[in-house]
Amino acid sequence: MYEVEVKVRADHETVRERLHELDARSLGTVTQEDFYYDAPHRDFAETDEALRIRREADDDDAVEVVTYKGPLVEQESKTRKEHETVVGDGETVDQLLSALGFESAATVHKERERYELDSYVVSLDVVTGLGEFVEVETETNEAGVESARVGAYEVLHELGLDPDDQIRTSYLGLLLEDE
Amino acid sequence: MYEVEVKVRADHETVRERLHELDARSLGTVTQEDFYYDAPHRDFAETDEALRIRREADDDDAVEVVTYKGPLVEQESKTRKEHETVVGDGETVDQLLSALGFESAATVHKERERYELDSYVVSLDVVTGLGEFVEVETETNEAGVESARVGAYEVLHELGLDPDDQIRTSYLGLLLEDE
Repeated sequence: MYEVEVKVRADHETVRERLHELDARSLGTVTQEDFYYDAPHRDFAETDEALRIRREADDDDAVEVVTYKGPLVEQESKTRKEHETVVGDGETVDQLLSALGFESAATVHKERERYELDSYVVSLDVVTGLGEFVEVETETNEAGVESARVGAYEVLHELGLDPDDQIRTSYLGLLLEDE
Repeated sequence: MYEVEVKVRADHETVRERLHELDARSLGTVTQEDFYYDAPHRDFAETDEALRIRREADDDDAVEVVTYKGPLVEQESKTRKEHETVVGDGETVDQLLSALGFESAATVHKERERYELDSYVVSLDVVTGLGEFVEVETETNEAGVESARVGAYEVLHELGLDPDDQIRTSYLGLLLEDE
């Protein structure tokens, strides 16, 4: 599975109005806490990989997932191979990773307000320490990466945003740059 | 969490009769397929650790769990630190581990008939390629390891088995010895 993702800094109020005009379907708001790891045998900053446990909660429920993100496979967008699955208990996965020598690297905390538009998910992210961003995202197979990216650019245009403003650095990367 | 486990080779029919006499509660029979991994940065055979994905199925249902087992902490029994949690999709965890450089080491397949006796789980295991075993197992915290082991020995005696016959090598280890 490939994740195609385009991200820009943007004022949420303007984008939210545009989403309503376009009849985008609201998917609600969640809190996401992402716990990133360093590997004992590779420098993920060098290899451009990531391993994280995400705890996602809304008013009713919380779910924890473990995610591996591979290096960028397409430079035009933030497209990566991704392996992600739900886990019963994130703290146990943390203990398992620690026992294997993986070390806690950083935590990214955000509020994510999601909308569905065409076949894309548009996220209005408020990232602690970084500010407001809009992400346009979809999943595809290898053959679909190019057209998924073109579609993501179209969605950005529809929202009054410019793909040329896109930020290819992850939230984790941005936070580490700030340090 | 510590897993205290004592294992012996034993004829199942005799043990099963004894379990019935002792009014042990049957917990049913499951099939377990254990997929073990080699680490890219450590020799688990040297460090006496294990990482596996288990797929456990009965007639109705299947569940997948990921498990880390640390080195033996008590030589008298097979006692190890264990971190285990359910995962949504074992194949995705396999892909995640492969991407991180973990390699498939071996698969252990068994039928496991389980009983509850006192606060122990007694498993009658038929392991493909190895034969019939009985395992007496419980979970405890660090302070409870010694008394849990003594209790496990008592259960073995009750079943007409001898703790001196115990095998400290894992099924994985036994299978690899046979190669």
